Amino acid sequence: MKSTLAISLAEVTQNIKPVDSTWSVRAHTRLDRLTKPLGSLGDLEVIAERMVAIRQSESISELKKMAYVFAADHGVTAEGVSAYPKEVTRQMVLNFLSNGAAINVLARLHGAELVVVDVGVDADFGSVPGLIDQKVRTGTRNMLHEPAMSADEMNRALQVGLDMSESAHDKSCSLVAVGEMGIGNTTSASAISAVLTRQPTALVTGKGTGLNPDGHMRKVRVIESVIERHFPDRANSPDPLDVLRSIGGLEIAAMMGLMLGAARHRIAVIVDGFISTAASALAYGIEPRVKDYLFAAHASEEPGHRFLLDFIGLKPILSLGMRLGEGTGAVLAMPIIESAIRLYSEMATFASAGVSVARSRAS
Amino acid sequence: MKSTLAISLAEVTQNIKPVDSTWSVRAHTRLDRLTKPLGSLGDLEVIAERMVAIRQSESISELKKMAYVFAADHGVTAEGVSAYPKEVTRQMVLNFLSNGAAINVLARLHGAELVVVDVGVDADFGSVPGLIDQKVRTGTRNMLHEPAMSADEMNRALQVGLDMSESAHDKSCSLVAVGEMGIGNTTSASAISAVLTRQPTALVTGKGTGLNPDGHMRKVRVIESVIERHFPDRANSPDPLDVLRSIGGLEIAAMMGLMLGAARHRIAVIVDGFISTAASALAYGIEPRVKDYLFAAHASEEPGHRFLLDFIGLKPILSLGMRLGEGTGAVLAMPIIESAIRLYSEMATFASAGVSVARSRAS
Repeated sequence: MKSTLAISLAEVTQNIKPVDSTWSVRAHTRLDRLTKPLGSLGDLEVIAERMVAIRQSESISELKKMAYVFAADHGVTAEGVSAYPKEVTRQMVLNFLSNGAAINVLARLHGAELVVVDVGVDADFGSVPGLIDQKVRTGTRNMLHEPAMSADEMNRALQVGLDMSESAHDKSCSLVAVGEMGIGNTTSASAISAVLTRQPTALVTGKGTGLNPDGHMRKVRVIESVIERHFPDRANSPDPLDVLRSIGGLEIAAMMGLMLGAARHRIAVIVDGFISTAASALAYGIEPRVKDYLFAAHASEEPGHRFLLDFIGLKPILSLGMRLGEGTGAVLAMPIIESAIRLYSEMATFASAGVSVARSRAS
Repeated sequence: MKSTLAISLAEVTQNIKPVDSTWSVRAHTRLDRLTKPLGSLGDLEVIAERMVAIRQSESISELKKMAYVFAADHGVTAEGVSAYPKEVTRQMVLNFLSNGAAINVLARLHGAELVVVDVGVDADFGSVPGLIDQKVRTGTRNMLHEPAMSADEMNRALQVGLDMSESAHDKSCSLVAVGEMGIGNTTSASAISAVLTRQPTALVTGKGTGLNPDGHMRKVRVIESVIERHFPDRANSPDPLDVLRSIGGLEIAAMMGLMLGAARHRIAVIVDGFISTAASALAYGIEPRVKDYLFAAHASEEPGHRFLLDFIGLKPILSLGMRLGEGTGAVLAMPIIESAIRLYSEMATFASAGVSVARSRAS
């Protein structure tokens, strides 16, 4: 089943509103009345304040949490850029459907509904229960030799994500984790990082799922050639959609669509690791207001990740040395965000609990 | 009701065993068989490995979680070292008992049984439901003029914590969060930090619950005088129990007792923030093997905290700019630890899921 909805990207981005500061101020005022020293919950207060502003409500404690994993293959794997064979994309999708992967365990534990979407895996799954078939193509083209996608393929992959944001909205989702599976996609994310942040390729390219030093050198050389081919003039700021089409991935396009669509519906988005952040950086390039709706889950071990986070201006919630993908970091950040929200909603105030305020405030 | 148990500190420390590396090796082997790139769960793998070694079992997914908050007052508050009046210790204990404080919200959300212990609050609570009365004294003496505790008071406060570890063990607790409430206790923790880590007082002294610059300068001067009085020769390594008795607190002693007693029963301990870490540093001074059982929950905003973490050699799980105490950071780390354990227990292996291993491992 291919999408039949017709929400255009332009329509979505035009309808992303900046969060309303009157809600932030209201949230801040309540936070300062809770029985704790001013500001002593640190980043949890910032999270709670932003959730109130995103949801435009102080009644935010009923969270409907969802986690999306978009899977797709990458033509560039022909260049030997990954420690794993590309069949692993297909195998891991089946693992997701049998509840055996890390994301299954975390989604179950933290109460997120998991949605697995095939947007471009190089395999015929037939009709497997639990898999959403939105395959645009059996993987991208090899970006070393040609653009990863045609404009039509890119638009269809973006549309898959936009459609998912509509269904999340229909389910009253308030918090969405955005993850991926795709052997070879750290190569794409590294290339995107180098082009967007203008850092040297070697600085933003890591070992992915576990390359040895030779493999890592090969990966760096491949990415350098890819950039030379598609963006020879690195002094210019490229169009984000050109970047996506030339050196992106089908799952990266779908993640962008979901992020932009979620922001349009005032659904808070938890960006996962390196690949997910590359998608969010491109979404930010298209429409900077999307940033108001993004939470960065964690600082990945992939070296390009921090450059992308800085590019957008996001501070990660966790830093646990993870580099797994699948949305695992994003779902792991959910209990932290939920803690922030519950503290906001359930703590007593100084007045209600009869607790004295600080001397400097009382006087 | 005062304690009538007779477990001596020496008996407990003698029975703390280093964790068994054969269990760590077994856990590591299983982790490498799970469907994820080697090591890609980062610190979660380290946590899972250590939990298996602590519990001496691979069946660790049924966690019984408890959170202890020890409350006590500090004589040194007479010197104006806190932004809050000392009555707040009593008021916050009542807030804990009415479920209105941050620790109540977090313990409820993350499934930890909360235990509130009065080990030295300067107030008569009568018989309040839910409060464990183990009051040793109505607060410490003013350490600017005399030792904070007599040897007998210190031993009784340590015993309170040891007794709590026995009851946690009786309840089959496997993971315990250790927190506190006590206006003035960052002054004690800063003094302990300066003496143990030999850092300048100003470097390990923060604004506590929210001192202004004048108040902070006064606090630093008070701590310098306290150290000059009790430990004039800072070149010598002081005895941890001398430090505890002279410049510690009743809640700090009780936390030490609980930490040591928990380690003796192979219960994993989550150390909270600055005060709790000061207690763990003293416990480590008494018996270094306790370290095998400690997890540092988070990096507090209090500047002395990182020096204490380095002193013991602990890496914090979270870093969210919190500085609240009550065990809030420790309980917030519970879903991360639980995630690590569930991933360990519930993920599929490469063999069971039919997923290909990395090329470098297959060859």
